[in-house]
Amino acid sequence: MCEANAYLKDGENDILFMESVDTIEPYENGLKLVDIFGKQKFIQAKIKDMALLNHRIILEKTEL
Amino acid sequence: MCEANAYLKDGENDILFMESVDTIEPYENGLKLVDIFGKQKFIQAKIKDMALLNHRIILEKTEL
Repeated sequence: MCEANAYLKDGENDILFMESVDTIEPYENGLKLVDIFGKQKFIQAKIKDMALLNHRIILEKTEL
Repeated sequence: MCEANAYLKDGENDILFMESVDTIEPYENGLKLVDIFGKQKFIQAKIKDMALLNHRIILEKTEL
């Protein structure tokens, strides 16, 4: 399976925000993440970078 | 393999920009994409959305 884990950048650390993410799309002024089970999470953030072979997506909080 | 194809949004169409993308990271005022063979491409764009199980990443051009 080709899902990835989404981490939220917090200074020097990356905090796990959601596992097994399938889709990410814009939602209002942030992002909607949906995992492979259909569970949704919303976050006021943008996609900073990703490494698909490592199954990592890094999100970064955005200002309101 | 869990690479994805990156498409550039052009109105109603999505134009294939790069195949077999592994990593995407910010670069200057756009993005640097690296494929599984190590080839690099740069684009003045942001990540709009993605569907990993479908191996699709949609990029959107940004203004200078």
